[in-house]
Parts: sequence; structure tokens; C-alpha cells
Amino acid sequence: MSVTRTWRPIAAFVFVFILAVPLHGLAQEEAAGKPAPSNVRGKEFPKIHPDRRVTFRVTAPEAQKVAVVGHAADSGMNGNTPYEMKKRADGTWEVTTEPVRPGFHYYELIIDGHRTTDPASQTYFGWAQQTSGLEVPDPELDFYDAKDVPHGEVRVRWYRSKTTGEYRQAYVYTPPGYDSNPKLRYPVLYLQHGSGEDQTSWTRQGKVNLIMDNLIAERKALPMLVVMEQGYAVKAGLAAPGPAGNSAFGELVISDLVPMIDSTYRTLDDRHQRAIAGLSMGAGQALQIGLANLDRFASIGSFSGGGRAFDPKTSYGGAFADSATANKKLDLLWIGCGTGDRGYAGATSLHQALDAAGVRHSWFEGPGSHEWQVWRKHLQDFAPRLFRGSVGKKTL
Amino acid sequence: MSVTRTWRPIAAFVFVFILAVPLHGLAQEEAAGKPAPSNVRGKEFPKIHPDRRVTFRVTAPEAQKVAVVGHAADSGMNGNTPYEMKKRADGTWEVTTEPVRPGFHYYELIIDGHRTTDPASQTYFGWAQQTSGLEVPDPELDFYDAKDVPHGEVRVRWYRSKTTGEYRQAYVYTPPGYDSNPKLRYPVLYLQHGSGEDQTSWTRQGKVNLIMDNLIAERKALPMLVVMEQGYAVKAGLAAPGPAGNSAFGELVISDLVPMIDSTYRTLDDRHQRAIAGLSMGAGQALQIGLANLDRFASIGSFSGGGRAFDPKTSYGGAFADSATANKKLDLLWIGCGTGDRGYAGATSLHQALDAAGVRHSWFEGPGSHEWQVWRKHLQDFAPRLFRGSVGKKTL
Repeated sequence: MSVTRTWRPIAAFVFVFILAVPLHGLAQEEAAGKPAPSNVRGKEFPKIHPDRRVTFRVTAPEAQKVAVVGHAADSGMNGNTPYEMKKRADGTWEVTTEPVRPGFHYYELIIDGHRTTDPASQTYFGWAQQTSGLEVPDPELDFYDAKDVPHGEVRVRWYRSKTTGEYRQAYVYTPPGYDSNPKLRYPVLYLQHGSGEDQTSWTRQGKVNLIMDNLIAERKALPMLVVMEQGYAVKAGLAAPGPAGNSAFGELVISDLVPMIDSTYRTLDDRHQRAIAGLSMGAGQALQIGLANLDRFASIGSFSGGGRAFDPKTSYGGAFADSATANKKLDLLWIGCGTGDRGYAGATSLHQALDAAGVRHSWFEGPGSHEWQVWRKHLQDFAPRLFRGSVGKKTL
Repeated sequence: MSVTRTWRPIAAFVFVFILAVPLHGLAQEEAAGKPAPSNVRGKEFPKIHPDRRVTFRVTAPEAQKVAVVGHAADSGMNGNTPYEMKKRADGTWEVTTEPVRPGFHYYELIIDGHRTTDPASQTYFGWAQQTSGLEVPDPELDFYDAKDVPHGEVRVRWYRSKTTGEYRQAYVYTPPGYDSNPKLRYPVLYLQHGSGEDQTSWTRQGKVNLIMDNLIAERKALPMLVVMEQGYAVKAGLAAPGPAGNSAFGELVISDLVPMIDSTYRTLDDRHQRAIAGLSMGAGQALQIGLANLDRFASIGSFSGGGRAFDPKTSYGGAFADSATANKKLDLLWIGCGTGDRGYAGATSLHQALDAAGVRHSWFEGPGSHEWQVWRKHLQDFAPRLFRGSVGKKTL
């Protein structure tokens, strides 16, 4: 009963894993390497070679031992085994990796045992701190590139949450034409990041605005707002919020965020025009908040979530206990996971249990692990399916 | 002939420099300390004590030597002399500084000689890399706090520059009411950061949006757009841009940025409604670009710039050679500098030479060095003076 789409591994994707480091032509490749797009402007290293090996270079003349390490076991940078760097005559340290997977990878330097950022790289909020990131272009994909199409904006919106008693930030993507069509109203996707990330992550790591600009330009997705909140929320007056303290996030979304967005932007205040999705921790938040508030949300997306035991009769407050009711209430239930994700078995079993229970949903699987390149592809598949129901068609 | 405002040193400001480290009551103060507002959410350290001493704590069990250092000689954190940290029984390292100046200070950790970021702190683009920052609240000032007033937005705007051949980002502050008044048009301030900073700096370090929100709520400043560009620009086809490569920035502003802003936002396309200002390197850019393009800009602000030899007859293409002409063309020429800034003598001599030449201008001096707290105060004084000329009054 599910609409299944399996991502076909493209040749280039396999290629990088079977390519041996070439023993000739290194000098030319060295010269042909390009600074990573994630570098600080003007920095030569990290440098990406045509075969996607990456050379890191670090200035640390007093250090005894320097290494570079991918931050996740499955990011493609040699797992999470550090690459030891070699000291050069000029006091810098250098290493060239094997070919690295296209996409975005968190990484760290290890200076005499201390894990830290690479000053040559931009930093990205991930792993609950500002972390270096390596963007490796994918020659086969351009759906998240900046192109000559009309561009929307990402707006930094301050607002006050009564739930937490704080001033908080939401990032709000507005589509091209939002300002020039002041009578048009838009559907809204609430889109959450993963644990240890924040409201900036979907824009900076995920390139949400460029993905949406391109989908909208190609008329593959409807123009919509995308709201990204910082995701952690503890009730006012409770203990100081920790990075994982998100017990009040559902209340914040319903009581503070949705009303603020609907009163600040030209939205369509209608459950059929409001979706909630997220990745990893955000996938859990989307399922919990969305399914507990089906009067507000008719579309839900789970990107690389799952892992919890799922019982269609009792889970999520029994939202799936009667499949006919669930199918009537949900315009879109979308579930996706990378086949290399440790949560893949959990996501698959959720998908299969929903299938067995007769709950209509989209299922998306493809190569990749728990990483941003997968989530970019998830958004690329998910966003075009949103707000296409009869109500959506009628309204827009 | 200049309108002079001298900032009176407030008692608290002097207080922090003469306060001896108290030898009693340390335990209570330790408990009363609060995490710095610039910390990563949920991180206890850096912790600011009521007397503004700051405790830093770092986990680096394998390191031999750990220190923390302010990034600028005059930031108030013991100059740029590192504070050596002491290893504790649990493997963390700690130090408590003397009382630190209110405001924003870049800082670094030094782990076995390697300067790097503090994982407990947010990072800010400064010194041509992502750098840790310490925000120390000022109990005497709230003009840059988030308050219960209508909030504008900061919009991340992608656009294509023909000058450099790149996709680039500008950050655009739009005032409260911009969306709800779709027929209103607004004046524009182009506002540039300093060397080694970028388009994010005025928002993140400078709190431009909160300053403008508060000034507009108090009706001290007119609603306006504030455009912040990344500031480095090299002609397409020339060598790879370095962090200091800004030879084509003037051309980019005139040929690409201003036309993009005027065609994308509801601006008043009129020299009386367009200003350019900046700090440090950006002050030089504002003076050079503004004075060379008086058909586009009638208001110019120089925050902590100067230092070049100035000759009223020949400098800036002779824009001040005839003071009557200059006074006619310039609605506002604003020059400010901290008395503790190494560029103070240069800024003062520019101010005096303009006075002697009979060029009308605003002059603002006050305590502080080459630092963001000074630039926040500059903006607070500068923005209310903008677009108040006869044409501005007529149009708005």
C-alpha cells in the first residue's frame, strides 16, 4: 500500500569506494585540486582532488601529534578512525585521505589528543558544538546548487516563547515571489534538525533554501514557507536547558511557534496546508507532534528516524489503530532512511508495519547513512509531494 | 562646525578596572555566576561572575599546557597576554580572569601551543576564521537586548554578482512592518564589517537587528533596511580571492548590490534615502565608495576608521576640496572612534581637518577601543541621524 521509491546507486557513487589511490599523475592532481566549498574564503586547504581524495593541512608547529577525523562512523572519511598527519619541513602537518563520499561531513582535528575545529573551515552547529564541516561536491547532482533561478530568502525571526520564557530564533524560508505577491498565502512546512544541531542546520548543512528554490523553479514543488526552530525547549522555571532538553518542544510548537508564524506570515491556516517533518531526533518530534495534533497537521515526514518499537495499535497515542481513520486524516505520511543507517532496520520495520496495517504512506530508501546528503535527497523527494491533495490544489 | 557628542564614562566602566579580586565570598560568587550568553546552549562555562570575572573551563586531559587568551590587545581580557589554566583532578583545566569589560570579545584557547576554538562557545567569523566569542552583559545598557517590541528580520539573500562571477550572500535587515505595509518604501543603509569579518558579523557580533528594533520602537530611528555584504570581492577571472581581496568591492556595490537591493526590496531609490557606513576596513570602504558615488549616497558613516593621511584638498578624489559643495551634497557625514583605539589619533585628525576646512559632520568619541561594544554605540548614535533631511521628511 506504500508508494515506494528506491534510489538507484549511481555509478560514481560506487566508483569512489573501489577506486585505488593512483600511483601516477599525483602531481597533476595535486595542482588540479580545489578548495572545498566549505572552506573559509581564500583558504587552499582542505583541498579536494578530482578523484575526491582530500588533503588537509594544519599549522601547529608546537604540536607532537596531529590527526584529522570524520565525526561519524559512517561519514565516508575512513569511518571514525583518525588519519594521522605528517609534519612537514615548514612546521605544517598534512595528510591526504582516500576518496571521500560526496556530501557534507562533520570533522575534527586532534591536536595532541584534543579534538577541535580546523581554522581553515567554516563551522556548523552539530554534535552540540560548532564543528568543522567538509562539503564534497557531487558531480552527478546539482539539485542543491545555487543556480540562476529566482531565489527565496531565509529569514532570522526572533520571537518570544511563553512556554519557555525565552526569546528564541526560528529560521524561516520564504519562497521567491513572497514579497511581490502580497495577497498570496502559502502552505507551511515545519522542518526540524537532528540532535546536537540547531535552527541554522537545515540552511547551512542542508541547503534547504537552494533545494526549495530549484524545486519551485522547476515547478516540482509548490511555493511554501519552511520554518526551522532551534528544537530544544524546557518549560519556563525548570532547570537550565541542556542541549537534549526538549520536553516542552511539542507545547512550544503548538502554543507559540505555529500561532506566531500564522500571525506574522501570509500562511494558509489549515491543517491540509501545514506539514511537519524532521531528521533523526527531528523525525521523532515530527511523528510525535504531528500525530498528536492532527487537527493542525495533515502531512508528516520522518527522515532517518525510527528505532523505537512500533505497535500500530498503541504507538503514537493510537493514531494508527484504525487505518481507515489514519488514511483519511493523513494527506501524506512520508518515511525515508538510508540503507547504510544504523536506524535502517527500525525505519524499515515501521514502514512494513504500516503497510501490514494498511496505512498509506510514502517510503524512500537509498544508499547513504545518517548524514546530510541523505537528508537533502529526502527533502528533494518529500517537498514535491506536499500540499498536492485536493484541498491544496483548490487553494493554490 | 561639527556636532560633537562625547560619551561620558559611566561609573561601572571605571569600576571594573580598579576592582581588586575579592579574597572573600568567592564561593558565593562562584554559585551566583551565570553562563555567558555566547555559550552553546546548556554549557555552564565560560561563567560570568557578578563582578564580571570570568571562569573558563576546558576538557583536555592529554594536554600539557592550556591557556585562554583574548584575541585583541585592547579587548579588556588582560590585553592579549594568555591566562594559563590549571589542571584539575578530573582532567579539566580552569582559570578565572580579572573582571572583564562589558561587550563582545573574541578569544581563543591555546592547547599545547595551538590556538583554537572553545567547544563551549558559539563561534563568530572574525580574524578571518571562526573564532570563539564571549558576550559580557553590561548592566548599564540595554539598547541591544531582545525586548518586547516589534521585531524586524534579518534575511539571508543570495544573489549573483557579475563583477566577481560568484553567487554571494547579503544579509538584509527589514524593519518591523515591512511585510504588513506592502506599499511603503524604505531608505537603505549599507553597513559593512571589519577586516576578517563577514556579512554575518553585524548581526551576530553587532546585534544590528536588536539595536534597530529598539531604536524604531522608541521612534528614535526611522524604519529602514540595513544591507550587509560579505565585503571581499575580486574581479571575475582574476586570482582566487583572498580574505583581504576587496579590490572590486566598490564596483560590486554600485553595479551589482545596489541594483539588486533596489529591484528586490521596496526601497526609496534616491541618494537622500541611501547611506553607506562601516567599521574599520568597512569605514574606509564607506568613505571611498560613498564619496566617489555621491550621486548614489548622501549619507556616510565611518566607525573607527581613519589612519590614512588626509588632505581635504586632494583626499577622496577631492570630494572635500570645496566645503560648500561637500556640505550641499552630504546630508550626513558621521565619524566616530573610541578613545582607546589605536586609530583614535587618525580619526581625530580627520575630524579636525574637516572642521578646519568647514565640512559639516558628526563627531562621536567615547571610551573603548577597536571592539564591537564601541560599534554598537556608534550605530546607536548614527542610525537616528539618518534620512532626517528635508527630502527624507518629505518622502516618509
